[in-house]
Amino acid sequence: MKKRYLLAPGPTPVPESALLAMAAPVIHHRTPQFSEIFKETAELLKYVFQTKQDVLILAASGTGAMEGSITNLFSPGDEVIVVNGGKFGERWAKISEAYGLKVNMITVEWGKAVDPAAVKKILDEKPGIKAVMVQASETSTCAAHPVKELAALTKDRDCLLIVDGITAVGVFDLPMDAWGIDVLVSGSQKAFMLPPGLAFAALSEKAWKFQETAKCPRFYFDFKKERKNLKDNTTAYTPAVSLIIGLGEALKMIKEEGLQNVFARHDRLARSVKAAAKAMNLKLLAPDAPSNAATGVYVPEGVDGGKLVKYLRDEMGVTMAGGQDHLKGKILRIAHLGYVDTFDIIVAIASIEMALTKLGHKAELGKGVAAAQQILLEGYK
Amino acid sequence: MKKRYLLAPGPTPVPESALLAMAAPVIHHRTPQFSEIFKETAELLKYVFQTKQDVLILAASGTGAMEGSITNLFSPGDEVIVVNGGKFGERWAKISEAYGLKVNMITVEWGKAVDPAAVKKILDEKPGIKAVMVQASETSTCAAHPVKELAALTKDRDCLLIVDGITAVGVFDLPMDAWGIDVLVSGSQKAFMLPPGLAFAALSEKAWKFQETAKCPRFYFDFKKERKNLKDNTTAYTPAVSLIIGLGEALKMIKEEGLQNVFARHDRLARSVKAAAKAMNLKLLAPDAPSNAATGVYVPEGVDGGKLVKYLRDEMGVTMAGGQDHLKGKILRIAHLGYVDTFDIIVAIASIEMALTKLGHKAELGKGVAAAQQILLEGYK
Repeated sequence: MKKRYLLAPGPTPVPESALLAMAAPVIHHRTPQFSEIFKETAELLKYVFQTKQDVLILAASGTGAMEGSITNLFSPGDEVIVVNGGKFGERWAKISEAYGLKVNMITVEWGKAVDPAAVKKILDEKPGIKAVMVQASETSTCAAHPVKELAALTKDRDCLLIVDGITAVGVFDLPMDAWGIDVLVSGSQKAFMLPPGLAFAALSEKAWKFQETAKCPRFYFDFKKERKNLKDNTTAYTPAVSLIIGLGEALKMIKEEGLQNVFARHDRLARSVKAAAKAMNLKLLAPDAPSNAATGVYVPEGVDGGKLVKYLRDEMGVTMAGGQDHLKGKILRIAHLGYVDTFDIIVAIASIEMALTKLGHKAELGKGVAAAQQILLEGYK
Repeated sequence: MKKRYLLAPGPTPVPESALLAMAAPVIHHRTPQFSEIFKETAELLKYVFQTKQDVLILAASGTGAMEGSITNLFSPGDEVIVVNGGKFGERWAKISEAYGLKVNMITVEWGKAVDPAAVKKILDEKPGIKAVMVQASETSTCAAHPVKELAALTKDRDCLLIVDGITAVGVFDLPMDAWGIDVLVSGSQKAFMLPPGLAFAALSEKAWKFQETAKCPRFYFDFKKERKNLKDNTTAYTPAVSLIIGLGEALKMIKEEGLQNVFARHDRLARSVKAAAKAMNLKLLAPDAPSNAATGVYVPEGVDGGKLVKYLRDEMGVTMAGGQDHLKGKILRIAHLGYVDTFDIIVAIASIEMALTKLGHKAELGKGVAAAQQILLEGYK
């Protein structure tokens, strides 16, 4: 017997109400029945994105929405700034280059946040820059970039702020309209508590203006066409019907909990994991700019991080993420976004303590759990 | 958001494979398709009951099998011994009396096991005694009675040993044929990892002899008729089709894990909870004769057990059981039978520590968890 626990930074656990809704017989997408669900769901998405703009719903993973954010708004030869502080920052650059954009890369040490001054410097030097692309939460390093400060820089320039909010929207406060984010994208398998398969993108009025002159080739990710269809409560191409029905359920849960309470829960869970890490003497990967989506810790000296991830997953049934590229084997990423609460954290910390013990590291059992419990108690009256 | 954890002594958690099997469209019970499943499932039941005898499958809760064990084997006026050490011992007496049997009650202090000498004394004094009725595991007190010793007493007498194994079969070793248990009953919502709705009963050859002359009135619970139908891979009345299909899946899981490994897991979980209780200074309810199905602990002085159970369930989403009758408000029963493993115990202990803290009791966080972790580590290579 092996019970499974999913504590990776996506896919994340799916609540029962969404699972049951998605298990219902598939309905046809060109029906009043589906349109009604679609309309209600699209409206709830605006609440979570904190925007008055339409939020496009695409049958794709988050990368699809990232690609569309570039192809729909720019033309080959356009110059952009990419904040590259991890695997996903790197992805902005790769997509931009695939479509012939000229990338000004700001390389940020993994685990650190970008310094807005570095962005401002390039913007000041090169007034032709069309966009700044950044991750609100860089999943590969568990660090958060200062989106509000970056938005203040782009707001009054002829330049868009394009934000990958894949592990940020619904995790921490990212008020699109209030801050002046021009493009905000996300995906279903993160704080939206669904299986992978849906991507979301919302564009500011300023971004829609860019769309009018953008010449990059595109077909499936055609935002103008999707916006037109959205007004008719449908999508340009066949929507992922069951996932959208599940999305409706998940969004109702978020609405019921209340967005600010959802943020507070993520903050509490993140603090509990950081407290546990401290109690276990595990060094944080992003101590200065931690994302509330996941916490990265360095594995102790002498422990193979790859073995730790494998032991947790294969022997204990607990799936967490390891490191990528130069952090491979060196870190453990404990996710706490989406359908996650107190006892998921307890399981995560207890399993790490036990796995480290099994791998020969002298870990004091219960010490990390106790530190987490202390913070998690705040969640109860 | 509130996640739910089921740690009561029944119903117990149901594994995904069984849930999915039960969610499939209902098939008709008078079909070769169902007969095939029924046959295979009935065969697997014998493995778990450790018997060569047929195991009858009834659409009922465990109490139905208890009633049938009396009405099919005895006649009004027959004299029996009932070991009454809790709510379920009491039930044997109530059913016996409802059908006009004469009950010799051995009252056992709640939390204690019966002394076989007390049973022997009555058997010696009254050679006409037709049965000894007992619980292998008395769910209301978390105590286990000495079934093997009782079987040794009845084996060579014209007297049956009737065992309520509702929270015992599939939890700890109870080899029906090897020990000479004459009737062994159980229910689906315990170690069989299913929702409530099925009861099981297996009878020794000696018990079937008793059946031939038994005159108690009966209709729905007609064991002879059920045995005849079982040979034809069906049941006398409409079987609970989906539950039986789920049972097949659950039994396959037990077979795959191996019965001795299942017992070892329950033993490990029980020891971990006892170690945690000790670390938390919680007095055991049944220190001398603990059942591996559930562990009962007295709540600390000054804590209202009813409030504790309610706080755990309503505020923390963790369902455990309180006490009944004179133990109401005084104890907490932490179940660890069925589809339960390491991290269910971690959640149970962590939640108790946190709930006690919230209720004003000075509990050292993480201390019980650490004690449990130490034992639970034995389950990993």
